[in-house]
Amino acid sequence: MADSPNCDLKSLSPLQLFERVTEQGEKVRALKAGKAPKDEIDAAVRMLLSLKQSYKTTTGQDYQAGLPPRDLVLINNGTTKEEDEDFVDPWTVQTSNAKGVDYDKLIVRFGSSKIDTDLINRIERAIGQKPHRFLRRGIFFSHRDMDQILDAYENKKSFYLYTGRGPSSQAMHVGHLIPFIFTKWLQEVFDVPLVIQLTDDEKYLWKDLTTEKAYEYARENAKDIIACGFDINKTFIFSDLDYLGTSTGFYKNIVKVQKHVTFNQVKGIFGFTDSDCIGKISFPAIQAAPSFSSSFPQIFNGKENIQCLIPCAIDQDPYFRMTRDVAPRIGQPKPALLHSVFFPALQGAQTKMSASDPNSSIFLTDTPKQIKTKINKHAFSGGRDTIEEHRKYGGNCDVDVSFMYLTFFLEDDDRLEQLKQAYTSGELLTGELKKVLIETLQPLIAAHQERRKEVTDEMVKQFMTPRKLAFEF
Amino acid sequence: MADSPNCDLKSLSPLQLFERVTEQGEKVRALKAGKAPKDEIDAAVRMLLSLKQSYKTTTGQDYQAGLPPRDLVLINNGTTKEEDEDFVDPWTVQTSNAKGVDYDKLIVRFGSSKIDTDLINRIERAIGQKPHRFLRRGIFFSHRDMDQILDAYENKKSFYLYTGRGPSSQAMHVGHLIPFIFTKWLQEVFDVPLVIQLTDDEKYLWKDLTTEKAYEYARENAKDIIACGFDINKTFIFSDLDYLGTSTGFYKNIVKVQKHVTFNQVKGIFGFTDSDCIGKISFPAIQAAPSFSSSFPQIFNGKENIQCLIPCAIDQDPYFRMTRDVAPRIGQPKPALLHSVFFPALQGAQTKMSASDPNSSIFLTDTPKQIKTKINKHAFSGGRDTIEEHRKYGGNCDVDVSFMYLTFFLEDDDRLEQLKQAYTSGELLTGELKKVLIETLQPLIAAHQERRKEVTDEMVKQFMTPRKLAFEF
Repeated sequence: MADSPNCDLKSLSPLQLFERVTEQGEKVRALKAGKAPKDEIDAAVRMLLSLKQSYKTTTGQDYQAGLPPRDLVLINNGTTKEEDEDFVDPWTVQTSNAKGVDYDKLIVRFGSSKIDTDLINRIERAIGQKPHRFLRRGIFFSHRDMDQILDAYENKKSFYLYTGRGPSSQAMHVGHLIPFIFTKWLQEVFDVPLVIQLTDDEKYLWKDLTTEKAYEYARENAKDIIACGFDINKTFIFSDLDYLGTSTGFYKNIVKVQKHVTFNQVKGIFGFTDSDCIGKISFPAIQAAPSFSSSFPQIFNGKENIQCLIPCAIDQDPYFRMTRDVAPRIGQPKPALLHSVFFPALQGAQTKMSASDPNSSIFLTDTPKQIKTKINKHAFSGGRDTIEEHRKYGGNCDVDVSFMYLTFFLEDDDRLEQLKQAYTSGELLTGELKKVLIETLQPLIAAHQERRKEVTDEMVKQFMTPRKLAFEF
Repeated sequence: MADSPNCDLKSLSPLQLFERVTEQGEKVRALKAGKAPKDEIDAAVRMLLSLKQSYKTTTGQDYQAGLPPRDLVLINNGTTKEEDEDFVDPWTVQTSNAKGVDYDKLIVRFGSSKIDTDLINRIERAIGQKPHRFLRRGIFFSHRDMDQILDAYENKKSFYLYTGRGPSSQAMHVGHLIPFIFTKWLQEVFDVPLVIQLTDDEKYLWKDLTTEKAYEYARENAKDIIACGFDINKTFIFSDLDYLGTSTGFYKNIVKVQKHVTFNQVKGIFGFTDSDCIGKISFPAIQAAPSFSSSFPQIFNGKENIQCLIPCAIDQDPYFRMTRDVAPRIGQPKPALLHSVFFPALQGAQTKMSASDPNSSIFLTDTPKQIKTKINKHAFSGGRDTIEEHRKYGGNCDVDVSFMYLTFFLEDDDRLEQLKQAYTSGELLTGELKKVLIETLQPLIAAHQERRKEVTDEMVKQFMTPRKLAFEF
């Protein structure tokens, strides 16, 4: 028995160390219970103390049984004061900074890579087109292994796209469109299959909903997603409640992921507690499994090795860090990721737009008048208190929600830059900036509503039917 | 706020009390963290202390955070000494008593009901036949709600049977046949549909197996089950890995159960720890779901209210106590149960026969010679050390494994009684008793092997295809 375990402990993550301490503690208890020889018990205790010391060195905290290190959930914003912490998990985004979450810190903390100019240029060369405004403007700002995707693409190897949505209500807001607008662009420029997961089971587990209602929301949300203009021959949309019972590959991947993730891990990653239902605890595997092409035998002909690229908001990254950790252990390629920033609430970038707060959101069902009223009434302004001050000192685009929204939706780079300069210099007033946003959003949402009207139940059924797509594998 | 919560606490189970204490503790912490008014904090603390006192009164132990009361797993054998405890859970059965587990204590501890003479007589009247030897001899000794099943049957209301097996290896032993022999008899006398679950996903999660291997074992085990003589028109056999992806109803019931069971509950019932994988933690819902007829829409035409009767060994009861707890909360009828004793190992009734210990088991593949050798060599004898002593004092049928096996397999009641008297009086020697057992088991296993040879892959496929059975719903 090696008494000094430190040699190989430095490479372990806090969670791995935590589990080593826990295991060793169980071992000591078993030895004591089994009345093992004293020297054997002593050696095991020494090892335990040594592991606890390593844990403390690595995490800066004492080991506490049953309390694994909270992994990546609290994002410290540079100071140690609690009120300055950004909180980001798949259910909550909160920061005290009016500019929004500090995304550079998030990249460091999550261990992802910044989408830098080199990568954007490489994408431009690969696709022979101007990159999407979401890339040009840092709205998709972080990635994992996008280089590998481009390597594959340049070598004519195929990959596929996977994104999703939790259908918690019929009402989708403009922020919900961001991943879909970008995914549609990716699908067009790379010409690859796309799978879209509607996690109606998640919503059933987390909310006060029946399975029937959750599935109904999934179908309604599918209409809004289809209205983004996805190609029916290249896109498969699925509800978990429905597809799990109709796929020969999906459950097998779910159970494989579930075998390789412990409660300690999901506790650390998602903050689950012992009072959470076992459905929530095992759900992360269901969001993980579509990262593996064998979950879709009808599309990929049962092939297991097709690389996956996931465009999503950064708050979904915990699911996919977990997935990437498991992938090699079940003989699957790690999915690559492209992360977007959050879409800010009307009241400001301290939190993201949320459908459960109608005042924070512009819905895809809003009338031109509602859009105008909400923006004028609620959109947080970076302007000054009086016209005179504004003219003199100028507005602050970094915290102005109308300007932020324009960076998402106004395609014309020159126009955006002009607006920024005019607003910053004080030449453009808040009301005038809001007017530009209103005139940008109104036709965009009206056009979406027109397209949505054309989406029939039959089309939804087709999109949601497991089938071969227009690709050979 | 009620300061004295004791009035309504007496009806709570230890686990419910545990959860109340945990919740109240979280509340106190939240109040303190939120710097709530002192009197509010004080009131919450008083409530917490009061809850802890109730917990101690009910369980006899101090509340320990993160350590819910172990529910029904340790069955105290009447004394407080550790070495006298029976241990029974779905994975382990261990007692220090050569007569086997104390089943009367188990009934009290599990809160089930004894199958008494009245119930056996009622079954006899209902079916108009002599009850199976397993009922006559107390091999199926405990039940839940069997009266309701008989009420339904007498009122011409239908029910269905559900049993199962964890296919951990190709090698099934004679003990594995017990639930199937009895279930076949139940199906014949009541003429009802039967579903048989092969938990290949469980075996994948618990053992060092691939999903492919686990599924292969499931198919091999299905052959042995089919060889018991089940009616293909009335029986559906399914592998979880396979059926979950082909049923529109199964997953929906699984996720419903998963929403209504917490980690604390499965920790208390099954002894899971934080280091267990999330697949194990959520698995109990997968064994629960076939208790609901809507898991089999192809058989029951989507009907949700068909009552289920589960014949199984008593160690599986924890799954179904959990299921019965959840059922009303998801609008489903509670399944009824019939519990059997364990089938003893050759070495004695201190533990059950286990396929992973070849010396403890008579396999369905054993030759007549192997059967003879194993029984002669390993079957624990209740006889005396010398022939002289045996003739003088007689043998002990209560601990004699050969006699126990004959109670399972020898149909003739009179013959069994004669053997008992002759062995107890010392007239019959151990070797002679073993000879009777060998001559009983050899033809039985040979006949099973003959029938198994006739089971084709095509038949397995048919049994395992989701389909309508010979019943209208």
